[in-house]
Amino acid sequence: MSKEITSRQQDYSQWYNDLVIKGGLADYSAVRGCMVIKPHGFALWENMRDALDKMFKDTGHVNAYFPLFIPKSFLSREAAHVEGFAKECAVVTHYRLKNDPNGAGIIVDPEAKLEEELIIRPTSETIIWNTYKDWIQSYRDLPLLINQWANVVRWEMRTRLFLRTAEFLWQEGHTAHATAAEAIEETEKMLGVYATFAEEFMAMPVIRGIKTASERFAGAVETYCIEALMQDGKALQAGTSHFLGQNFAKAFDVKFSNKENQQEYVWATSWGASTRLVGALVMAHSDDEGLILPPKIAPQQVVIVPIYKGDEQKAKIDGKVSEIMKQLKELGIRVMYDNNDNTRPGWKFAEHEMKGVPVRLALGARDLEKNEVEVARRDTKEKKIVSLDGVAQYIATLLKDIQQSMFNKAKQYRDDHITNADTWNEFEKLLDEKGGFISAHWDGTAEAEEAIKDKTKATIRCIPLNNQMEDGKCILTGKPSSQRVLFARAY
Amino acid sequence: MSKEITSRQQDYSQWYNDLVIKGGLADYSAVRGCMVIKPHGFALWENMRDALDKMFKDTGHVNAYFPLFIPKSFLSREAAHVEGFAKECAVVTHYRLKNDPNGAGIIVDPEAKLEEELIIRPTSETIIWNTYKDWIQSYRDLPLLINQWANVVRWEMRTRLFLRTAEFLWQEGHTAHATAAEAIEETEKMLGVYATFAEEFMAMPVIRGIKTASERFAGAVETYCIEALMQDGKALQAGTSHFLGQNFAKAFDVKFSNKENQQEYVWATSWGASTRLVGALVMAHSDDEGLILPPKIAPQQVVIVPIYKGDEQKAKIDGKVSEIMKQLKELGIRVMYDNNDNTRPGWKFAEHEMKGVPVRLALGARDLEKNEVEVARRDTKEKKIVSLDGVAQYIATLLKDIQQSMFNKAKQYRDDHITNADTWNEFEKLLDEKGGFISAHWDGTAEAEEAIKDKTKATIRCIPLNNQMEDGKCILTGKPSSQRVLFARAY
Repeated sequence: MSKEITSRQQDYSQWYNDLVIKGGLADYSAVRGCMVIKPHGFALWENMRDALDKMFKDTGHVNAYFPLFIPKSFLSREAAHVEGFAKECAVVTHYRLKNDPNGAGIIVDPEAKLEEELIIRPTSETIIWNTYKDWIQSYRDLPLLINQWANVVRWEMRTRLFLRTAEFLWQEGHTAHATAAEAIEETEKMLGVYATFAEEFMAMPVIRGIKTASERFAGAVETYCIEALMQDGKALQAGTSHFLGQNFAKAFDVKFSNKENQQEYVWATSWGASTRLVGALVMAHSDDEGLILPPKIAPQQVVIVPIYKGDEQKAKIDGKVSEIMKQLKELGIRVMYDNNDNTRPGWKFAEHEMKGVPVRLALGARDLEKNEVEVARRDTKEKKIVSLDGVAQYIATLLKDIQQSMFNKAKQYRDDHITNADTWNEFEKLLDEKGGFISAHWDGTAEAEEAIKDKTKATIRCIPLNNQMEDGKCILTGKPSSQRVLFARAY
Repeated sequence: MSKEITSRQQDYSQWYNDLVIKGGLADYSAVRGCMVIKPHGFALWENMRDALDKMFKDTGHVNAYFPLFIPKSFLSREAAHVEGFAKECAVVTHYRLKNDPNGAGIIVDPEAKLEEELIIRPTSETIIWNTYKDWIQSYRDLPLLINQWANVVRWEMRTRLFLRTAEFLWQEGHTAHATAAEAIEETEKMLGVYATFAEEFMAMPVIRGIKTASERFAGAVETYCIEALMQDGKALQAGTSHFLGQNFAKAFDVKFSNKENQQEYVWATSWGASTRLVGALVMAHSDDEGLILPPKIAPQQVVIVPIYKGDEQKAKIDGKVSEIMKQLKELGIRVMYDNNDNTRPGWKFAEHEMKGVPVRLALGARDLEKNEVEVARRDTKEKKIVSLDGVAQYIATLLKDIQQSMFNKAKQYRDDHITNADTWNEFEKLLDEKGGFISAHWDGTAEAEEAIKDKTKATIRCIPLNNQMEDGKCILTGKPSSQRVLFARAY
């Protein structure tokens, strides 16, 4: 099975597609740019969603659900917002089909035209702030800390499974505050939640930073982001948190009376992370044999494969396996027994390697006699013979080791791929030969940023938080600069 | 606060709307027919969703996600299906907006017209069976047991919060089987899951039955349903499970090679339950003071309200409350402490009654001295003074009592409202004066069914499973009938 995967060396992009499809994460659909998330991929997403959801709730947020549709006029209320989203949206213009009077099947009923077209939400600031107008009157109604799990649509021209699809699943937090300071604190807090989630659950180290003005969310005053590094040296934005100032409150006239009984516009944030993270996870860790999934979010953490001849051996192994599974489940470990009769152990090994199950146990009749089992870890492919006494505890520890070791490996790679460039030649050479983040001076103008992008396809991924101040000269223009920023080619 | 609710007697329909809005479950939105599910309503739905999801997984199903969009041509593939859904769908015709050259804001870009229009899914049989075509080749690929949690859109003309909205949230199971018998077994199994969920979690008794041909899902061979009774004597369909035969397999050419290596069409089921259940829950149990929620799915099961004068009393109560909360949480009970300084106990009592919190503790300084607490249950409004020693265990038992007692009460009401009618006069009188389910003979023709509906607005809710055979005469036509069926006016 693993032979069917293109190697990273050969074609990284094809390797990624092979993994997503053959690893059972997603499939193409009949609708341009939309994917089908397959059961294995969805189980992974559910674990990611549940972990994030718990973190949101632990920080005081509640979930709600707002309409899929946004009246066209809402989009235009915030000037920057409409510029950012109008060009790639799905528009509902009619609400009925009918039989073609000429017999050519069903057609859109021209009489069922909407008075105002509806946009499928590309993000929900507008419909939500239009609702908040009714929910917020006084400082007592603030802060309002709401999150929504939803599907959104952005009509992208070039799409890739998980990384960029017309429809995707995400969460979007939308909070309302009485002061700018509180809103900024919230923006930073949620960036912290994303960073913790990426590092502790996805085992994916991230850099926290702020975006330049040109890369800001359409309608934001400041966009914070976390940036991860993929194995091909390209960066990937893994979550954003926006301080929206009073832009949306002004656009939708959302005011509150403060403690002094004066009317003020409300301060806002929004923050989101999406199924794109599944793509990031694949590219951050996997290898040429298939997926490598971090134990904390892997749909199955352990798979047990029996190796037997005849029913007598099988019955003995079955008995022992059910004991082991019971012990593992008591420790909260997600385990499956692959006792399918139709496939052989070798095929199963390859299949579970492809799907990224972190730990595999292979249990044969001879192992049983010796009271042993072979334990293989997916990340390093190391195998070890372990006594069946205390095997559950051994595996619990091993899963933690794998989680940490995957993070360490990714962090080592990431740290090795943050390189300073002080001349344009160095900059270009690093981009082409080494990749990764390039830390370089920039004169702070959108013009230089754009010119660098045009020349190299590298963008400013972020200005890291707590960045060190350092005088220098812009890599392109030679104009003075007070700090380095991180450039990279990115997904 | 409770004074603001219209009473059931006065206007049942307005009472329902008041409860949904003032109970914090949902709100109207700016988009016609679409609602906003507010945090309290969404937390309730999350608990319902999680309980159902666990039941689906326990019966071997996995989740996946399919596109929001359905190509227009897909809808037409199954003849009955398109008849049922084409008339009420949202149609995406364009994928871009642009600035109006005449300066009138943003308009739909006429150049961004889709070659084939996309329908927002009203249900996903077509897109899913088009996908299953690629996933199913052999009997080894069957059964395929997949569920999806998603939003769907049906462009209803008359909408009501939760009960009938243009967009709603639901789950839709779509399974594929090698034989008709297996598919029918699955259809019945999932009906059983819905019935168990309705009765054990929602405390809402249901009748299991099958729909008449006219009430069948568009494209089904047989539609099974659960029917509940609301407090105004109207029925509500609370979940459906469809045996689809080979209709969709034929429409999308989904064949598998059986064990004899012959090609056969695949057998299908689909089954769904939606946010409509939230409306059913409200109408099944609540009263004129607000919501009454069954403990198993209530967002908060217990609220504690402190009654104090001054900081010293407050500090003592706070200390005791944190002990009680710890004990309750250890028993897995969802509890909140309403220590808001801005509102008085009486206001809080009304508020939590409105929101349906099953149990309220009121703890004052004098109670503390006596080592007692006042425990009020929401369903019966009974209050009792209980010793603080062992109060957590008392509450755990009380929550179970409330759950059971709510079910018993609803069942008593439901059973009292299943009445036989043997003449047309009796039938009409029962409908107008008593309501509920009317068990009557019907000649089995769509014509009589339609005529009864036209005359009385009553529909055949179902032919109960394991219905007793009994010779009789159709209530309308007098023609012979072999069994009674259940009629009701319905939501």
